[in-house]
Parts: sequence; C-alpha cells; structure tokens
Amino acid sequence: LLPIIWKDENNTLTILDQSLLPFQKVYVDLKDVDSTALAIKNMQVRGAPAIGITAGYGMVLALTSNKNVKTLDEAIRELTRAKAILDSARPTAVNLVWATSRMLTLAKNAVENGNAKTINELIDLMKVEAKRIFDEEYDAEIQMGLYGLEKLNDSDTVLTQCNAGGLATGTGLGTALSPVKLAKALGMNVSVIAPETRPWLQGSRLTVYELMEEGIKVTLITDTAVGLVMYRGMVNSVMVGADRILRDGHVFNKIGTYKEAVIAHELGIPFYALAPTSSFDLKSNVNEIKIEERDPNEVRTIRGIPIAPENVNVYNPVFDVTPPKYIAGIITEKGIIYPPFHENIKRIVER
Amino acid sequence: LLPIIWKDENNTLTILDQSLLPFQKVYVDLKDVDSTALAIKNMQVRGAPAIGITAGYGMVLALTSNKNVKTLDEAIRELTRAKAILDSARPTAVNLVWATSRMLTLAKNAVENGNAKTINELIDLMKVEAKRIFDEEYDAEIQMGLYGLEKLNDSDTVLTQCNAGGLATGTGLGTALSPVKLAKALGMNVSVIAPETRPWLQGSRLTVYELMEEGIKVTLITDTAVGLVMYRGMVNSVMVGADRILRDGHVFNKIGTYKEAVIAHELGIPFYALAPTSSFDLKSNVNEIKIEERDPNEVRTIRGIPIAPENVNVYNPVFDVTPPKYIAGIITEKGIIYPPFHENIKRIVER
Repeated sequence: LLPIIWKDENNTLTILDQSLLPFQKVYVDLKDVDSTALAIKNMQVRGAPAIGITAGYGMVLALTSNKNVKTLDEAIRELTRAKAILDSARPTAVNLVWATSRMLTLAKNAVENGNAKTINELIDLMKVEAKRIFDEEYDAEIQMGLYGLEKLNDSDTVLTQCNAGGLATGTGLGTALSPVKLAKALGMNVSVIAPETRPWLQGSRLTVYELMEEGIKVTLITDTAVGLVMYRGMVNSVMVGADRILRDGHVFNKIGTYKEAVIAHELGIPFYALAPTSSFDLKSNVNEIKIEERDPNEVRTIRGIPIAPENVNVYNPVFDVTPPKYIAGIITEKGIIYPPFHENIKRIVER
Repeated sequence: LLPIIWKDENNTLTILDQSLLPFQKVYVDLKDVDSTALAIKNMQVRGAPAIGITAGYGMVLALTSNKNVKTLDEAIRELTRAKAILDSARPTAVNLVWATSRMLTLAKNAVENGNAKTINELIDLMKVEAKRIFDEEYDAEIQMGLYGLEKLNDSDTVLTQCNAGGLATGTGLGTALSPVKLAKALGMNVSVIAPETRPWLQGSRLTVYELMEEGIKVTLITDTAVGLVMYRGMVNSVMVGADRILRDGHVFNKIGTYKEAVIAHELGIPFYALAPTSSFDLKSNVNEIKIEERDPNEVRTIRGIPIAPENVNVYNPVFDVTPPKYIAGIITEKGIIYPPFHENIKRIVER
C-alpha cells in the first residue's frame, strides 16, 4: 500500500485518491501548489500525518513547478505564498501548518546560512527535508508496531475503530494497524475486526480496503455489533489511534472509541491507544477540549442517499473522549506507557 | 399510526410496509400464509409483537385462503403446515412461535371440544383469538407505559435503540416508547435520543419517523455516538424493547443494546427493558439461544449503495444479549421486575 509517492525524476507527487476508495483505485499526479492544496481540501488525501507529508512535498512543488523564480529571495517569497495557499486548504489540520512551517523555516535558514547558494541547491535541501517528514513518520510507526507486537499473540483478533492505518498516515503502515501488519509480515496469523465507523465509514471504506490489499484477514461489522463480538470472546485486544492524548491519559479519538473502551474494560480485554508522541497535549484539561460537531446531513444521509426524514434533529459529534481508567496502555514510538498515566505520560513523552 | 389492520369483509391483513418507511408510506395486503411469511422474512413487518399479531392472523389466512380444506381434520393439518411455514420465517422471534402455537392450540381444542363444528365456525373462533392477541398487546402496552411513567421525570431525555415503538408492536403505541408517549399525552416535556441502529436503520427510519409523526422531540445520532451522549449527561434513562427475556434476566434485543446497557451501568444511568410477559422464555439457558445472522450485504451496502469492498468478510448478528447485572428493571404489563431477577421474574410472569 503506497498512498503517497514522490517521483524525483519528474518532480511529481502521486497520491492515492482516498475519496474514491474502495470503489475506484485512482492515483492523482500533483505537480504544483494549487493542485496539492485542492487535493487536501477535497480530502483526496486525509489523515493528519498524510496531510503533513503531502504539504511538505507541496512546498517542494512550489519551486519545481515555477520557472519564473530566478533568485533565492524570489524563492522565499514564492514559498511564503505557497504556505498560505496550503495552510488554508484544511484550516483545522494542525499537521498541515506544522509541515509547511518546518519547510519554510528550513528554506530560510538554508538561504541565510549559505547552505543553499542556488535555487537547485535549495530544492535539493527541501526534497531531503520533505522525505525526512515522511521517514520520521514511518520510523515512528515501525517503532509503535514493534512495541505493539508485544501485545499480540498468534491467532489473535484485534478490534479497531475508524482508519488508523497507512492511508491515514500516508506511509502505508499506520498507527493502530502497525502491530498487526508487522505481525503478518513475521508470519503470525492475526486478524482484525473493523467496525464501519459511521458517519464517515472510514472502517468499511478504508480499513477494510487497506487490510484486504495487504492480505490480512479482516471482518467488517456494524458499529452496533462492537459489544457482541467482545462479549462472545471474538476479540483478544482493542487497538485504536488517537487524535489527542492529555497528560492524565484522556484519549480523544474518533466517535465510538469510548464505547469500545468501556466494554473492553468490563470484559477484561486490553484496550490500547496507539499514537506518536507528537499527538500528546500536555497542557490542556479534559473539559477545555471542544468536541467538534459536523454537518447533520452526514447522519441523515449515507453517500448521498437519505436514511432518515430530511428535517430530523441531529447531534453529530466527531470525537469522543475515553477516560484513562479504561486504557491498558498507550503505545508510542518511545515505548508503551502504562498506568498511572498522570505520572508516566510526562516522563516518557518528554524523554 | 396504524401499522396492522385486519379487514373482516375480505379476509385481508393489511400492513404498513416498514421496509419502505420513512420514504414511502405503502400498505401491503396479505391474503395467504406464504405472503404473510414472506412479509415477516423480508421485514416488511418487524418487531416481536407485530410479528406475533401478524402470525396470529397468518393462521387465520391459512384457512380463509385455502378452499381445498373440507374437513376439520384437514383444517388442523393445514394449520400445522402453516405454523411450520410461519415459524421458519424468523427463527429467533419467540412471539412468532408463541402466536402460531396459541392459534393452533385454540383450533385443536375447538375441534376436540366441539366448539367448532364447521370450518367457518373454526375460522370465526380463530379471528376472535387473533384479535385478542392484538388487544392483549395493546392493553399490555398501556400498562407498560403507565408503569414506565414512574421512571420518567419532566424534561427527561430517554435513549432508546432500534424501534420498540408502535411500528414494532403493530398497535401504534409501542413498548419502550410507550412511557414517553403517555408522558407526552399527559403534557410532560420529554424527549428521545434515537441511535440509527445499523444495519437496518430502524432508529433513523422508524423511531424518528414515528416520534416526529406524534410530535415528540427526537434527536438522531449514529450508533458510534451512543457512549458520548451518556458520558456528557445528555441521557436520564435508557429504555429499550426486548425480543426474549430469560428467567435469570438475560435480555436478547436488537444488536447494539448490550453496549448501551454496559455504558449506562458504568455511568449510573438506569437501563430498562420493556416487554410484555409473552416475551419471557422461562425454559432456556443463555447459551442455548442461537444468535441469528443475516445477509452480509446488509452491512456491505446501505439502501443498495455499496459502502465497502464487495467481497469483504462480514459478521452480521441481529441480536445481542444483555446480562442481568446491567439492568435496573424490566417493565412488563404486570409491573416492574427488579433484581434479583432469578427470584422475581418467575414470580411476576406467572402471576
């Protein structure tokens, strides 16, 4: 699974269009900033790390696609303009601004320090940095996968939620799915149960697609069946991603995660959240985090088809919050964090 | 709301096709056993009591539609055959077998006792009995509603699951929704949160439709949001129906019920199952009950639109089982049954 591919020979970023999956497998070539911004805006590429990687290469495209840039001053001006265009494509995506800032800062430093004396030298340095963003993400996922492997036995079945796989991260590996993928690569017989994850159906559309592509056994269930599969002993562990983890261990993740955590805890099934340490928010308290609500029509319809009376009142939260008491461990690239989280998170994240 | 109507003048059972709601309001005429069994199988009529009422009249149709039946012996044979056809339409529905058994027993007794001396006399007695099944259900729902009212305060919000309303029971009133409807009729300000209830979307299609029709405030959520609404204090009590309740208090109900019960219990929110005493199965043990699985395409598609790779492996159970420890009370027409259920169920059900 290769969701994001940089081609050096013709300076092209090729992305797997996630908005069409799993019905069509279409790769889209991005050659300039505008098409990259549009791909982010239209969610052809989605998932926080994947957006970061794409935006990093988008900054490279700002120079490779523009033959009018003659001087290094003009290059920095062009990159500043490109950053503004990319940043506005998904205003809430923290990784987007993080990646474009990192690229612009690198470029400015390279020019000031004299490390880049020509446009081509600057482009080469930026390509290295964009690849580094990708590689850092990929390395972190491999580490999470290796730590997560400690929690997997042969013939295990893992329940997940949403898509915390290689499509979301852009590397093809993923966070919550990384241990399962490494286990499969090592010849272990593991399988996944994927809830469809309404309203956006990332489970049925993306997780199922991704695992089938890689030959990993996966079973699709409705979100209603999450309890029964655990009750019937069909699940050995729960592994989910995380959008934000607080210093006391509260985990914000895709809506539906909380119910899996409570039931797993009740039945003695270990529940793990997997996320890089960049996802930790050591400052906020749980009540300060606003839960984003999205368009009611995401609930009233599915893929454009109505499933309810059109004017029905709807509550459509995107995330929920899982309290630390339900979490057996938080798996990061720096190791597995165990309770008590209010002591151990700070120590490991700031390691 | 009139979901099931018997027309004596032309021996026709007319049902509101629940598989088309809320998009089309279509009444279907059933004139024989096969079409009745098909309507049950295809879930044009669904919900345990509604299935019971329909099956009761289905037994009447076995005789009214069959002009080849000349003798009372042939009639009993025909009814025995009809019972087998109807019973196999939904193997888990205990009300189905209960209703067909009741009708067959009545017929046998009427023949043996000489109360029915002709086919027509037998048909007349059976019509009375089928109407009695309907009336008993309706009376029971009013009683359940009155008992359930004890558990409702003004401004309460009730979380439900699936459709345990008047569509499910066939009377227009309902089991789990009966207290809310009586509260509304008494001028109380109550509201309902309805999870969409995949795969069949009885929540978004039926419960929302039914409550909006009756002017009761309802909010639609995805099944993934069930935990968050309880966690955030938006729910005062959970009220669901039940397909089958065992003597020790295990409740079999629509897939997704179990997760609501576990989370409600965890958060101290009372969880009530509402069902007539006819839904109790005092003989079986929990492990003896087979959980029906339905067509994987119900999960792979929504209203005919694909939402997953077409060959994905699917687990599609229809029911789950809620252990007694999570249940605050079982509300029946004979009163509210409290724990310890293994003592109190038998006493009240056999009252």
